[in-house]
Amino acid sequence: MIIVLKPHTSEENINRVENLVKTRGLDTHIVRGTEMTIIGCIGDTTLIDPRLFEVDSSVDKVMHVQEPYKLANRAFHPEDSVVDVSGVKFGGGHLGLIAGPCSVESFEQVLEVARAVKASGATMLRGGAFKPRTSPYSFQGLGLEGLDILCAVRDEVGLPIVTELMSPQYLDVFNEKVDLIQIGARNMQNFDLLKQLGQIDRPILLKRGLNATYEEWIMSAEYIMASGNENVILCERGIRTFETFTRNTLDLQSIPVLRKKTHLPVVVDPSHAGGKWWLVEPMAKAAVAAGADGLMIEVHNNPECALCDGAQSLKPDKYDTLLQQVKQIAEVVGKVL
Amino acid sequence: MIIVLKPHTSEENINRVENLVKTRGLDTHIVRGTEMTIIGCIGDTTLIDPRLFEVDSSVDKVMHVQEPYKLANRAFHPEDSVVDVSGVKFGGGHLGLIAGPCSVESFEQVLEVARAVKASGATMLRGGAFKPRTSPYSFQGLGLEGLDILCAVRDEVGLPIVTELMSPQYLDVFNEKVDLIQIGARNMQNFDLLKQLGQIDRPILLKRGLNATYEEWIMSAEYIMASGNENVILCERGIRTFETFTRNTLDLQSIPVLRKKTHLPVVVDPSHAGGKWWLVEPMAKAAVAAGADGLMIEVHNNPECALCDGAQSLKPDKYDTLLQQVKQIAEVVGKVL
Amino acid sequence: MIIVLKPHTSEENINRVENLVKTRGLDTHIVRGTEMTIIGCIGDTTLIDPRLFEVDSSVDKVMHVQEPYKLANRAFHPEDSVVDVSGVKFGGGHLGLIAGPCSVESFEQVLEVARAVKASGATMLRGGAFKPRTSPYSFQGLGLEGLDILCAVRDEVGLPIVTELMSPQYLDVFNEKVDLIQIGARNMQNFDLLKQLGQIDRPILLKRGLNATYEEWIMSAEYIMASGNENVILCERGIRTFETFTRNTLDLQSIPVLRKKTHLPVVVDPSHAGGKWWLVEPMAKAAVAAGADGLMIEVHNNPECALCDGAQSLKPDKYDTLLQQVKQIAEVVGKVL
Amino acid sequence: MIIVLKPHTSEENINRVENLVKTRGLDTHIVRGTEMTIIGCIGDTTLIDPRLFEVDSSVDKVMHVQEPYKLANRAFHPEDSVVDVSGVKFGGGHLGLIAGPCSVESFEQVLEVARAVKASGATMLRGGAFKPRTSPYSFQGLGLEGLDILCAVRDEVGLPIVTELMSPQYLDVFNEKVDLIQIGARNMQNFDLLKQLGQIDRPILLKRGLNATYEEWIMSAEYIMASGNENVILCERGIRTFETFTRNTLDLQSIPVLRKKTHLPVVVDPSHAGGKWWLVEPMAKAAVAAGADGLMIEVHNNPECALCDGAQSLKPDKYDTLLQQVKQIAEVVGKVL
Repeated sequence: MIIVLKPHTSEENINRVENLVKTRGLDTHIVRGTEMTIIGCIGDTTLIDPRLFEVDSSVDKVMHVQEPYKLANRAFHPEDSVVDVSGVKFGGGHLGLIAGPCSVESFEQVLEVARAVKASGATMLRGGAFKPRTSPYSFQGLGLEGLDILCAVRDEVGLPIVTELMSPQYLDVFNEKVDLIQIGARNMQNFDLLKQLGQIDRPILLKRGLNATYEEWIMSAEYIMASGNENVILCERGIRTFETFTRNTLDLQSIPVLRKKTHLPVVVDPSHAGGKWWLVEPMAKAAVAAGADGLMIEVHNNPECALCDGAQSLKPDKYDTLLQQVKQIAEVVGKVL
Repeated sequence: MIIVLKPHTSEENINRVENLVKTRGLDTHIVRGTEMTIIGCIGDTTLIDPRLFEVDSSVDKVMHVQEPYKLANRAFHPEDSVVDVSGVKFGGGHLGLIAGPCSVESFEQVLEVARAVKASGATMLRGGAFKPRTSPYSFQGLGLEGLDILCAVRDEVGLPIVTELMSPQYLDVFNEKVDLIQIGARNMQNFDLLKQLGQIDRPILLKRGLNATYEEWIMSAEYIMASGNENVILCERGIRTFETFTRNTLDLQSIPVLRKKTHLPVVVDPSHAGGKWWLVEPMAKAAVAAGADGLMIEVHNNPECALCDGAQSLKPDKYDTLLQQVKQIAEVVGKVL
Repeated sequence: MIIVLKPHTSEENINRVENLVKTRGLDTHIVRGTEMTIIGCIGDTTLIDPRLFEVDSSVDKVMHVQEPYKLANRAFHPEDSVVDVSGVKFGGGHLGLIAGPCSVESFEQVLEVARAVKASGATMLRGGAFKPRTSPYSFQGLGLEGLDILCAVRDEVGLPIVTELMSPQYLDVFNEKVDLIQIGARNMQNFDLLKQLGQIDRPILLKRGLNATYEEWIMSAEYIMASGNENVILCERGIRTFETFTRNTLDLQSIPVLRKKTHLPVVVDPSHAGGKWWLVEPMAKAAVAAGADGLMIEVHNNPECALCDGAQSLKPDKYDTLLQQVKQIAEVVGKVL
Repeated sequence: MIIVLKPHTSEENINRVENLVKTRGLDTHIVRGTEMTIIGCIGDTTLIDPRLFEVDSSVDKVMHVQEPYKLANRAFHPEDSVVDVSGVKFGGGHLGLIAGPCSVESFEQVLEVARAVKASGATMLRGGAFKPRTSPYSFQGLGLEGLDILCAVRDEVGLPIVTELMSPQYLDVFNEKVDLIQIGARNMQNFDLLKQLGQIDRPILLKRGLNATYEEWIMSAEYIMASGNENVILCERGIRTFETFTRNTLDLQSIPVLRKKTHLPVVVDPSHAGGKWWLVEPMAKAAVAAGADGLMIEVHNNPECALCDGAQSLKPDKYDTLLQQVKQIAEVVGKVL
């Protein structure tokens, strides 16, 4: 951490700030420039809030040098983490292929989609049982009944399942039944929930919040890891920008950036990002070309009748065609399917 | 709702889409333009997701005409709602003045600040017992002990209290002890929590999410109201933009916009928006000039030693000076103190 | 400037980077932390691009400590600059009141509006002769004819005029005829034009670009100043964010922030920011409460027939009512009218 | 265009608004809903500003149905446009590969880079002679001397050149000497310049403004086309968002979106978007996988000594490796090299 003092700060004040730093267990190093003085803080500053010093009347600004996360930090864990979800691997060259309907509507619907996507090459099944909806008047999902449908289809088809948890109330049942627990963008900073996820050992799929910086996103993963669960997969699903023609702006630079900052695997969800089915195909291919460790794609057998987000769902035949190209690109960039 | 069909859509397809609309209980009205055909949907479209029709291959786009909220909508409730928090009124010309430390640190600290801000004219006390922090390694608040401190100070000083609820786990205790329950920006779309807030009758202070549109914010209020609790106060606290010198960008246009769209009162928190104490004074005055129904301001007796967010806290004497100008401006714009 | 080296950088590489810095005429100071080494660069770094060092393979990041501007910097010019526009003062406690139609449509129209706003207390007249329009098919302004109308009305009514320059082609005629030359948001980084503005001595009203940070905005002022013209007034007119109900988000925090960073006066244009006439009144009052040095407001005698931006124009009677409240608030915050 | 009237608008007012529409040469069609009335406007509304009607006191909102552009609109020009730049084709399945240094520094430097990138497979040479820089104190480019260097290298190596035009002053010399004239992000809405570009017939590379919506970007192309020059190539180079770790957020969804809205080719510049060389390789591959019609990449023989933007430049050997993978992905997605 570096503390920049205001121009013309007196020796007395420099000493005072220096002492303030030392009371936090850090060593200091003073650099006297022509126009300003800076204090370099030496020691582990990960756990220290820079705003503590900003408030001092002699301090101009405080700059963080170290990343504020440890467990998720690639600097302390240089190899890729490979997260194994009931046999399906993400990271370290492995590409996970998740597909399925936005919402669970019926056993027949999920079964039909699951069989189709498995035939195309998908390795995991998605489906929403609890749905976060902007409007209280929209379909909120089948809840526990939907979860049971997913489990029944898993038994029948043999694909592990991923589905979203919205409330700590259902943590135990998810821990028992779900292979990969998804935390949605709107709950990325529901810190209370994150801490509880650290107390189980199921893998977690942590979606990026619509306005989350890379650092905040990794810090949310750090919450889960610091509470005891290191099986975290990050999922890019678009951020909110000024452009509203697409639902969100898919930030594929996040893939190489996260690769540099953290050892955790990164999956991309092109369906929610764009909100339009015809954006899914080019963006899925782009995500793999950029090095993603997995894809999560919505597929529906009858999008016109979907209870939720039909507009962004691919039909099974389009998904099949897409996977053929995805596999070729994966090979070019050296991924294992 | 208006459905715009693709150019050159056949009569057969027009009829098909028309029937799709009718199955949702709406009447239709076809407008045939020179280059495109549109279908006007007549009836209550509040509860219908426009994306249901977007997926149709003949549909170009769907435009919502009606607002998707009812209970919070000023169109159906033209007078201002006045929310009464243990005697302190917000809305309908009443200006509520909330002040206090960011975090509850000790009984003595909160007592000292509470006495000072009451003497200056504050009508309600704030203080965080449970703190949402980006880092798992930062101070997380005193929890229930902090809540008890707030209650003790309330008994001593006589100011109602507002504090943030982060988890459904503590809903009952908050309902019993807290005058105004704050829901933070990061939980604005924690729909599970919102529904539970609808089942109590304590007033709720609903902060705007960092990336929430006006409509999404009102929809979150609608969640609480639709679940049974109509005592909702909205709180503008800044949005996330490309500008990072300030922590967030305070959007004061939200005040007149919300005034037009909803009958709920609007409070402004200039402390969290800017993240710097010297921004609080001009922004507090601006908020009142723009018509805010209340101010929530952080005041700390010793910001240099605050455990959290000291950089954005005013000292009691600065708060006192500020309130003098705030009162004069409130008078100019016709508010009752 | 501070250069943070990558963990475990060898002594040889530390020396190499140190020498790289020295070749730019700076002194260095090494701080060796437990986990990383930083190089403090001592000397005038204003003119040095930090990206020059970022490219080095041993460098993790480079942090700028000094502001990259000199002439506009309050640190080197502590008193407010007062810009005098043909007798109307902006800054140093003076509040300039600019009003007039969005576009110049006819002599009669501008004359009528100018007389009305002068009677209400406006001190300067605005009107667009050259109009930047998103569409090539929209009305582009009357051009030089519009400029002559403005001049004729100035002679008649006695208010100095401000109007937008879009092209270097008309610089000479603007320099001769216009009291205050406006540079629009879209040209804020038209560096070629900025340099040419530095070679005249007319005051310049520099609008903030829709995506300009405070620093970039001040740097554009610095371009004009460094080329020789120090009469620059900054104009906040809203930034682009995710919220689209309002045309732009008016960032009133810019007023106190600029006050701290620069000595130049700051004017606010609430008409373009919101794009709706009913937002102008609350935002104009808020801007003055926050300390603005001037207001620029669109007033039209017949907004329904305006050739451009009628939706955001006030009628003269509404402007008159607004100015009464503005004057009261200006008094509260200590401005001279 | 659809005009939504306020609830309970009287017949008289409905008639009045209807007549207002008719005076603009449009037919109308009234749809009376249970809670509101809408007026469908029939005829060519491309050239009509919806804000003209928004100002009416009976109008709630105005929604545009038709796109406001004609010449650039794929609806009226279903086949891809292929822009031929001195023999190098962009669009219609052709992938153009532009590479070269950020700034022209010397003949030797440009020659060395040009030979290297040509050997790797690049088909066009880039290099900045006039440089738009945020700071007036940064290197501003070699100007006309730089342009002459580019021409000399073209003669030597045989690659057509692209370079940025910043001012109408040099339009004639660019028209004479440059194969593809680049308009930078900051000048995307320099409407005066756009109109002048319409009067020449050189192909134009129009970069997306940092805050430009798809529609605004296409409208800027429409300006050039409406003025007479239909040879426009669009260039995605990242937009400004809240994320600041990367210089900008590369929006690859723009590729399929533009493909749908316009027939013009789309090139991607991953170097400027991310601002870091290690982001270029994954993003270049992603852009091609998403269907881009070209890539523009910065290559420097000695990035550590580059006068500008060295941090985002690839070394020739890295560019060579990249092109091998790019070619394989181009083949997968059906592009012609």
